[in-house]
Amino acid sequence: MSIGKQIIKLNSEILSSASIVGNKEHTGPLGECFDAFDEKDRFGQDTWERSESQMQKLAFGAALEKNGFKDTDIDVIFAGDLLNQCIAATYGLSDFDTSFVGLYGACSTAAESMMLASIMTSYGIYKHCGAVTSSHFCAAEVQFRTPLEYGGQRPQSSQWTVTGSGAFIIGKADDNACDSGRAFVVESLAGKIVDMGVKDGNNMGCAMAPSAASTLTRYFAESKKDPSCFDMIITGDLGFEGSEMLCDLMRSQQIDISGNHNDCGMMIYDRKKQDVHSGGSGCGCSAVVMASYIIPKIRSGEINDVLFLGTGALMSPSSIKQGQAIPGIAHLLHISSKPRCE
Amino acid sequence: MSIGKQIIKLNSEILSSASIVGNKEHTGPLGECFDAFDEKDRFGQDTWERSESQMQKLAFGAALEKNGFKDTDIDVIFAGDLLNQCIAATYGLSDFDTSFVGLYGACSTAAESMMLASIMTSYGIYKHCGAVTSSHFCAAEVQFRTPLEYGGQRPQSSQWTVTGSGAFIIGKADDNACDSGRAFVVESLAGKIVDMGVKDGNNMGCAMAPSAASTLTRYFAESKKDPSCFDMIITGDLGFEGSEMLCDLMRSQQIDISGNHNDCGMMIYDRKKQDVHSGGSGCGCSAVVMASYIIPKIRSGEINDVLFLGTGALMSPSSIKQGQAIPGIAHLLHISSKPRCE
Repeated sequence: MSIGKQIIKLNSEILSSASIVGNKEHTGPLGECFDAFDEKDRFGQDTWERSESQMQKLAFGAALEKNGFKDTDIDVIFAGDLLNQCIAATYGLSDFDTSFVGLYGACSTAAESMMLASIMTSYGIYKHCGAVTSSHFCAAEVQFRTPLEYGGQRPQSSQWTVTGSGAFIIGKADDNACDSGRAFVVESLAGKIVDMGVKDGNNMGCAMAPSAASTLTRYFAESKKDPSCFDMIITGDLGFEGSEMLCDLMRSQQIDISGNHNDCGMMIYDRKKQDVHSGGSGCGCSAVVMASYIIPKIRSGEINDVLFLGTGALMSPSSIKQGQAIPGIAHLLHISSKPRCE
Repeated sequence: MSIGKQIIKLNSEILSSASIVGNKEHTGPLGECFDAFDEKDRFGQDTWERSESQMQKLAFGAALEKNGFKDTDIDVIFAGDLLNQCIAATYGLSDFDTSFVGLYGACSTAAESMMLASIMTSYGIYKHCGAVTSSHFCAAEVQFRTPLEYGGQRPQSSQWTVTGSGAFIIGKADDNACDSGRAFVVESLAGKIVDMGVKDGNNMGCAMAPSAASTLTRYFAESKKDPSCFDMIITGDLGFEGSEMLCDLMRSQQIDISGNHNDCGMMIYDRKKQDVHSGGSGCGCSAVVMASYIIPKIRSGEINDVLFLGTGALMSPSSIKQGQAIPGIAHLLHISSKPRCE
């Protein structure tokens, strides 16, 4: 396998995936795909932070169960979330007897965790890895913006933080990998931090779009592929504003992705009926859409090759108040119904 | 190399390391070891958060320079810090033209970043990786406790957050690895989350000690080694209270580490003269002590085999206020003056 190149060639398989969501996500267009939901978004807990932890626990438990795994079958969990000090992951996953590596990549954390789990298993460093992420609308609002009781108004460019957790169990593609009905991670490309000076904390899509364009451009340049090689180029989560900007940015480099681009934040809610303005966001958004909608489509053969770009806005409420711009990052995974042939 | 075992055998080398510290660290017993300091702890910046970012920038820049590297020679930086949403790392490292993977492991982040960088380079996935972490006393106080102006009193069990950033450049051990004067990462063991119900946010050492004991016990059991195989078993950062507890916990399992255990938080300040109560803490503590004191000792041959356990307390101010206990984690690295022989 190559050294020094930026794209890492992989031979890993997504052995199982599961998702737990809130009520708004359950009543959205993908609602029937998710494994479980709670109509009060509380999951039996008395704080929003614990509710989010509980979602991670349920999602990882469901992913284990689907494949008949016990927690001790998993060598390491790569996990993170949006809460300060990533407490959704640490409290949610502390009951499992599994090593833990904590990540922070804002909304790119789903892709980041899947990338590390895929690399580790593809190279035989670990046999099975978990990748778990989450976000919770109520916990995110009070932390990043205002408590719900304040009733703050949201501009049209703002995105709605998804209440949800997605979990993946990833292993090395085995010798029977030619069977159909499977999903493989065949390439990854880690993102670079891109700061274009966007300072509007209510327009994360525009802050992140340049980082998605950066990673996509690097990928096409190094791989010599073009958008037509993929059934879907899916970002998570630029929303409607950011997605339009990404297509524009790519077009300015003579790469047209508008025909096969979609965004997890545009897919998870009904824009007309659900009052979410620019779409969904949060670590949980791309995690649950990938876990329960895209990966099953790859498994069923409906689509065969997907580029998944997890995008994150790397600011904090403090950095916004201190007048700093919002840097973005985007990690890329190439997920395919076929294992890598080379 | 082994699959499915918890200890990962590695063949990576710490090619360079550098540290930037504040005034209190500069005037402490290891003060002369660090590469640079600012006597006002500001590093030319107007907020504590930006000061911390600037330390990461300076530390990574210094580590690159020591080895004659440019940023483009580094494939990926693994980095994190204690600030909400890890903004010290994201703003501090955004100017470098290098892929970025964000981590959160509280004070274990230095070991976590070195572990991932060592695995990635040892297996040839990336050629050169960076590992960068930081903490800043003033930024940590306002975020985790109270603003400095409040003048809050600190109990004797509390630790003092180190103002400092440590950076490491790690690559695969090459064919000339038998030369002396070098430092190799030869084994790693990722930690599990351990929650023993400790709720005192002013006694992090005791919250983290059980996780260090967990990882150490797992390491000795799997490796069949014992403490006498190592010149030093160094934790970062349990402080005086937590270190005593770790030695007690290990003794209860018939493993005596008291003869060769030390702790970065106990080494960085003069307990009698510097009023730090239970010692230093923070992502930056173990990072700067390892970068500028321990690694040079391994390089010089003064010590040959070190177990480094980065320990982290995985709570947040919210989880403390909500009455939750403080889970801990400890990642282990075996660093040696000799490359792995097997």
